[in-house]
Amino acid sequence: MNFNFAKRMDTMKASEIREILKVTEQEGFISFAGGLPAPELFPVQEMLAASNSVLAESGSQALQYATTEGFVPLREKLAHRMNHKLSMQVTMENIQIVSGSQQALDMTGKLFLDEGDVVICESPTYLGAINAFRAYGCRFVEVAGDSEGMNLIALKKVLDDTKNIKMIYVIPDFQNPTGISWSLERREEFMKLVTEVEIPVIEDNPYGELTFRGEIMPSLQKWDYKKLVISLGSFSKVLCPGLRIGWISAGVDFIERYVMIKQAMDLHTSNLSQREINKFMELYDLDAHIEVIKKVYKNRRDLAISQLKINLGEQIEFTVPEGGLFTWITLPEGMKSRELLERCIQKSVAFVPGDAFFPNGGGENTFRMNFSNATEEQLIEGIKRLSEAYMEMK
Amino acid sequence: MNFNFAKRMDTMKASEIREILKVTEQEGFISFAGGLPAPELFPVQEMLAASNSVLAESGSQALQYATTEGFVPLREKLAHRMNHKLSMQVTMENIQIVSGSQQALDMTGKLFLDEGDVVICESPTYLGAINAFRAYGCRFVEVAGDSEGMNLIALKKVLDDTKNIKMIYVIPDFQNPTGISWSLERREEFMKLVTEVEIPVIEDNPYGELTFRGEIMPSLQKWDYKKLVISLGSFSKVLCPGLRIGWISAGVDFIERYVMIKQAMDLHTSNLSQREINKFMELYDLDAHIEVIKKVYKNRRDLAISQLKINLGEQIEFTVPEGGLFTWITLPEGMKSRELLERCIQKSVAFVPGDAFFPNGGGENTFRMNFSNATEEQLIEGIKRLSEAYMEMK
Repeated sequence: MNFNFAKRMDTMKASEIREILKVTEQEGFISFAGGLPAPELFPVQEMLAASNSVLAESGSQALQYATTEGFVPLREKLAHRMNHKLSMQVTMENIQIVSGSQQALDMTGKLFLDEGDVVICESPTYLGAINAFRAYGCRFVEVAGDSEGMNLIALKKVLDDTKNIKMIYVIPDFQNPTGISWSLERREEFMKLVTEVEIPVIEDNPYGELTFRGEIMPSLQKWDYKKLVISLGSFSKVLCPGLRIGWISAGVDFIERYVMIKQAMDLHTSNLSQREINKFMELYDLDAHIEVIKKVYKNRRDLAISQLKINLGEQIEFTVPEGGLFTWITLPEGMKSRELLERCIQKSVAFVPGDAFFPNGGGENTFRMNFSNATEEQLIEGIKRLSEAYMEMK
Repeated sequence: MNFNFAKRMDTMKASEIREILKVTEQEGFISFAGGLPAPELFPVQEMLAASNSVLAESGSQALQYATTEGFVPLREKLAHRMNHKLSMQVTMENIQIVSGSQQALDMTGKLFLDEGDVVICESPTYLGAINAFRAYGCRFVEVAGDSEGMNLIALKKVLDDTKNIKMIYVIPDFQNPTGISWSLERREEFMKLVTEVEIPVIEDNPYGELTFRGEIMPSLQKWDYKKLVISLGSFSKVLCPGLRIGWISAGVDFIERYVMIKQAMDLHTSNLSQREINKFMELYDLDAHIEVIKKVYKNRRDLAISQLKINLGEQIEFTVPEGGLFTWITLPEGMKSRELLERCIQKSVAFVPGDAFFPNGGGENTFRMNFSNATEEQLIEGIKRLSEAYMEMK
C-alpha cells in the first residue's frame, strides 16, 4: 500500500555507518567504521554496584516517572564538573538531561529550524547531526577549516552573504570525522565574530575530555558573553554509551524551551539509567576512569598512525588527532574511497567513506577511520589489509 | 536576547499536568492529577535482581551501543505476548522499541505530518498526543463517542468531508482521559470503515491489560487486513514508567521508516534499561504482577466511584471505567472546572481540567481524575475536599 508520509521522509535515509556495521558483524571482520568506545574498558562491576545501590536505596523513586529536566543530583554534578573542566559558569538550572547527545541534536533542530533555514557547519561534519537537522528541512552551508579549526574569513563571508541562518554547529574538540581540535586563539576569535552577529552556536563536545596532550580545552562558553552557546555533552565516550545519557548546557531561555520540546518527545530520559550514572559518579572516580581510557586510546592512535605511515605514508594524507576516536584519511585526488571500501570489505576490513560527512556532496577521496575500538593486533592486521586493497586499486 | 526560533515553538506550551503537579508536591497535598502508577506496587527487589543478572552476565554488551530497533530477545517476547494477549499476529520484525510510548507519538508525527495535515482523534483525547502531533503543525478534527467508543457515523462524515487526513489516533482501551473502552462490535465496525478508506490508525494501548473485567480486548490489528494499524504499547502502567520502555508494533513498511526516524532522534533506547526489563520478564511472572496491580486499582476505582456517588452523586456525572487509571467527570453546564481546581488547590487536592484534552477547545465543565496513585485514605479525604470545594462554588 502507498502511504502518504510526511515530505521530510523523502530526504531521510538509513545511516551509512549502520549499513556498513551490519557487514562487519561477521567473524574475523576488522571494523574501523563505527564510533564505538572499547567495551573492555567499561567499568561493569562498578556499574553493577551503582545499579544495586540505586535500587536498594531509592527503588520506587527510580522506577517512577520523573521530571523532564532530569535527576537533580546528576544535573548538579554535571554543572560542577563542566565549570571545573571546561571553564564554564553554569548551575543545574542550565542543564537538561537528554537520551544521548543525538537527542539533543534532534531537539535543537526542532527548536530552531523551519523549512529552508540554514545551518552553518564545518566541512566535513558529524553525520548524525546532518541527519537530525535535515529532518527539519534545513539547508547546510559548509565552512572548511585548517589544522586550528574553522576558517573565520570564510565564516565571515558566509555570515555576510547568507539569509535565514539559524545556527552554527561545530565540534571544536577532536572533531568527528577529522579528529582536528580548534586552537585556543581560534575559539576566541570565533566567539568574537559570533557575538557580533548574535547567532546561536551548537557546540558538540563528546570527546573533549579524551585528550592525549594533558590539558582539556575550554568550552566556547568561556567567551560567551551573550549566552549564545548551547553545549552538548555525553557519557557515551567517557563512561559508556548504552545508557544513552547526555546533556544540554545553555542559558535558561534555551533550557526552558528544550524542556517543552522534550516533554512532548519522551517525557524524560530513563530515570533508572540517570540514577545509575549519578551513583557511579558518587561511588567512583570518573576522572581516574578517563585516564585509563586515554592511555589505551593514545596507544591505539600511536599504533594506527605508525602503521599508516609504514604502509601508506607516501600514498595518502591523514590527520594526527591529539585526542578522541578518529583519524581522517585523504586519498590521492580522483581515487574513490567507496571503491576502496568495496575492496576492503572483500578483505574483511571496513571504514566510513568520507562523502557521508559532507551534507552537500564531495569528499569522495576521503574516509574516516576509528582507532578506539580495535585491539593492537586488529590495528596492525586491519591496516595491512587496507594497504593491500589500496595497492590493488592504485 | 530575542532568538529566532522555529515557528512551531509558538504553538508549544508546557504541559498543564506538569504545572499542576508542581503544586501538588507540597506535604499533605492529595493529587488526582497525574497519570502515575502506584509506586508501592513496583517490584523493586525483582528489578534489582534483574539488573544484577544483566550486568553480571552481559555487562559490556549492555553498556555498549545497540541496534536502533531494540534488544532482540525483548522484541521477541513482546511479539509473543501481544499475539497471545491481544489477538495480534506479529513477529519481532514488526516491533520497534521506543523510549516510552510518548516517543512513539513524536516519531509518528514525524513520519506522517506536514504542516496543515489533519489528525482525526477522539474528543476528548490524550494531552500528550495533542502536544506531540501539534509540534508538526497539524490540525485536529475531533470525533465524539459514546460508552461503546467512537461514533462511526460522525467518523464517516469527517472522512468524507475532510482533506489531507493523515491518520486516526485512538485509545480504545480505558481511554485517557475518559476511562471508556470500545466494545468488540465498535472495534470491528471501525476497522471495516478504516479498511475501506485506507488511512493509517494509531492505536495507543498503555492500559489494555489493566482490565477489571477479566478479559483483555483484542487489538484493532485483529481486523487489520491491510496493515493500517500502528499499535503502541508500554511497560509504564503494567510494570514501571521510570525506565521509559515502550514499543511500536506495525507492518514492516512502517517499522523500516520508524527505524530511520529513531536513528536520527536518539540512535536507540537505553540498552541497559531494555535488558533490565527483558530480564525481569525472564526471571519473573509479569502476568502475576499485573494481577496484583489490577486488584489494587479495582479497589481504588470502586472506592473512588462510591465516594463520588455519596458526596456528589446528584450533582455531577462520571464514567465508571472497567480498567485503567482514570475517571472522567462532567460538572453541570456552565460550571468551570478550572474555577473548581483553584478552590481545590486551596484545599490541597488537584485534578486536570478537561479542556486540556480537547485540541480545539471546549469541555470547560469537565475534568480527569486519577484513582491509581492515591491510597484509600487519600481517596476518601480527597473526594471530601473536592466535594466541599464544589459545594462552595455551587
